Amino acid sequence: MKLKSIKLNVENATANVIINHGEVNILSNELILELQHVISELNKDAQVKIVIFRSMNEHFFSAHLDLNLINHEKEGITGMNNFMKLIEDIKNMRAITFAIVNGIARGGGNEFVMACDIAYGTENAVFAQPELNTNIPPGGQGTVQAALRLGRSRALEFLLTGADMDAPTAERFGYITRYVPSHSIEQTLQQVITPLTFLDQRNIDMIKEIIDLAIHDEKAAIQLERKMFIERAEEEKTQYLIGKVIKHGAQTSREIHIEELLADVVADITQDMIKQQKNN
Amino acid sequence: MKLKSIKLNVENATANVIINHGEVNILSNELILELQHVISELNKDAQVKIVIFRSMNEHFFSAHLDLNLINHEKEGITGMNNFMKLIEDIKNMRAITFAIVNGIARGGGNEFVMACDIAYGTENAVFAQPELNTNIPPGGQGTVQAALRLGRSRALEFLLTGADMDAPTAERFGYITRYVPSHSIEQTLQQVITPLTFLDQRNIDMIKEIIDLAIHDEKAAIQLERKMFIERAEEEKTQYLIGKVIKHGAQTSREIHIEELLADVVADITQDMIKQQKNN
Amino acid sequence: MKLKSIKLNVENATANVIINHGEVNILSNELILELQHVISELNKDAQVKIVIFRSMNEHFFSAHLDLNLINHEKEGITGMNNFMKLIEDIKNMRAITFAIVNGIARGGGNEFVMACDIAYGTENAVFAQPELNTNIPPGGQGTVQAALRLGRSRALEFLLTGADMDAPTAERFGYITRYVPSHSIEQTLQQVITPLTFLDQRNIDMIKEIIDLAIHDEKAAIQLERKMFIERAEEEKTQYLIGKVIKHGAQTSREIHIEELLADVVADITQDMIKQQKNN
Repeated sequence: MKLKSIKLNVENATANVIINHGEVNILSNELILELQHVISELNKDAQVKIVIFRSMNEHFFSAHLDLNLINHEKEGITGMNNFMKLIEDIKNMRAITFAIVNGIARGGGNEFVMACDIAYGTENAVFAQPELNTNIPPGGQGTVQAALRLGRSRALEFLLTGADMDAPTAERFGYITRYVPSHSIEQTLQQVITPLTFLDQRNIDMIKEIIDLAIHDEKAAIQLERKMFIERAEEEKTQYLIGKVIKHGAQTSREIHIEELLADVVADITQDMIKQQKNN
Repeated sequence: MKLKSIKLNVENATANVIINHGEVNILSNELILELQHVISELNKDAQVKIVIFRSMNEHFFSAHLDLNLINHEKEGITGMNNFMKLIEDIKNMRAITFAIVNGIARGGGNEFVMACDIAYGTENAVFAQPELNTNIPPGGQGTVQAALRLGRSRALEFLLTGADMDAPTAERFGYITRYVPSHSIEQTLQQVITPLTFLDQRNIDMIKEIIDLAIHDEKAAIQLERKMFIERAEEEKTQYLIGKVIKHGAQTSREIHIEELLADVVADITQDMIKQQKNN
Repeated sequence: MKLKSIKLNVENATANVIINHGEVNILSNELILELQHVISELNKDAQVKIVIFRSMNEHFFSAHLDLNLINHEKEGITGMNNFMKLIEDIKNMRAITFAIVNGIARGGGNEFVMACDIAYGTENAVFAQPELNTNIPPGGQGTVQAALRLGRSRALEFLLTGADMDAPTAERFGYITRYVPSHSIEQTLQQVITPLTFLDQRNIDMIKEIIDLAIHDEKAAIQLERKMFIERAEEEKTQYLIGKVIKHGAQTSREIHIEELLADVVADITQDMIKQQKNN
């Protein structure tokens, strides 16, 4: 598929998905299909562990779902179904997903953000679900996400007014992961993403699984966490890594500067990998 | 019923319920019965979409349930049951309920606040459940509300100490909807309530239903949200409103100033309504 | 058991458990067994209502579980099991437990903090679960606690990066109970603990029970709260205490200064107790 509205840029473990679709990044059926295609491709790319969704639009992350799709015509129903599937697809991505919101995210555009694992909003961001103005509820899990993140009272205020919420408020209310001023976005991303690039995919999967279970069944999640802890403890890889961190000062006051300790571990492991490659 | 301790003022979609009952707005059986009566009347009034509970008392929203009712005498048990029913009645009101807390809300008075959909607290507000000082737990769902809003750790601190929490802290901890300085209360209310007056009652009901379900069963709520989205999309009213918002610049960069766009839509719809009335 | 790494200091209702174990308060099997012993003793001491865990280490609350225990050797498995049991033991303590975190709490050390009822962090505190660096998940309910306290999105960021979180952020995100600057810790503790010392153990138990139920089953918790409210209302002790608070100004504007009112009640009750002791 030739991408018309998305710029995709994969470098090492990180994919940047940059949306540029018309005046307001409207989620048209065209854009939805492109996004589904990109997501499907990224899910197949084992090297990609991090996916960052961004907008090239100066004012909008995404205005909302194409209003022309909201009706009972054949194309509309297809579009609405594609949109609801897109939200599920984003939620189910294998990689760790980030939404960088440096503009307006409303309606389906905001539901896109909420479907990502992590959402950062800048001073230019606003978040809203103004659907009730057109007699519809949010349809991309926006009602549910508001309830879970904001609690009953703030969700009611947010959804019934449909008003814009800025990023500092959204952080304070736990609606987004963090408020990050636009001038710090790249640095913050760099800092957060660097440790993620070292993670095994199965460890990402493991943490996601325990978290998702914990929110619905605390006791079952405690059992799962214990089981995984015991299982992983037995692995050779664990013993190798524990050996390395102890070698570089774990269990001593060197842990005061844990980032230096871990940098030394990474350097050491890299040396081992180079040696091994030479031997093969 | 002649109201002795409540001033009721209904204007268009908004009812103001102003409590003025003795030295500290104690929740006596008398006041409870008046409140139940007012709530029952407001539930019957289809035009009322917003109910705002306020206090005329300089220092108190409400001190607490009448302590003379807390015993095993006949009148006491009736009073306690009436109180517990009052809390349920507030929670089940058809309208969107606001508590404006500009003074002390403790014990049953605080449970009254927590039973409302939305709670604003000013610099004069404090919230507390000091019941343990008299060997009883909160009895109007105050223990449960603290647990759900504050989380286990902060709920323990709050309930076991019984100490006052001010409004900025209560906002920060997600215990109330928002901290609003007293000089901004009317302006904030105006801003929040204006869009609510345009809502159909069935849309208020729909959002409440999805939110309440989401908190207890995320998956079921996602299904309900989808179903309502598809159903509402088909309605003529939806098509009419989508036509109007598109006419006034939806899907274009005019959405940067969405409040202007929506004001134009409201003006346009009002014109249509006037025309229609002339034709009939 | 002779305590080597713990200083235990019980005064009236409050026990201070001060940990001083090697360079970084590593949770070795030795320290774990000492902690289990202390917890077991404190559970038996009916006078102890408050337990405060602290560290004497300048930099660390506790670095983490002893990495030498994380393997599939007999001693390791015993150590891991003891650690997981320690976390459960802390969670199940009869007393109200506080963790005063004035240094680094990572891995098992942070899970220790999260197992306490209440956690205060100072400007010197950091909280982290860096286990993924060694191919293991947190094993002391750290994954689950992060999910429940931070929500899905922030828990993912926290656990997948393994990065340190400072106390102001941890308070803002609801991960700890409160950020308290180190110079205010003793005063804050004094203020919070004083009302707790007057509580009957069974009332502490009651509040814990309703809170824990509420988080998992709101409706059942509402029923339990009501039942306890009605039951406690009937008790002679309740009537006695209600008589005292009314005598000292409850239900009047004296409640504006509730702390003075309650101080008078305490003084009055103390007089009654002295009189009764003289009569016996």
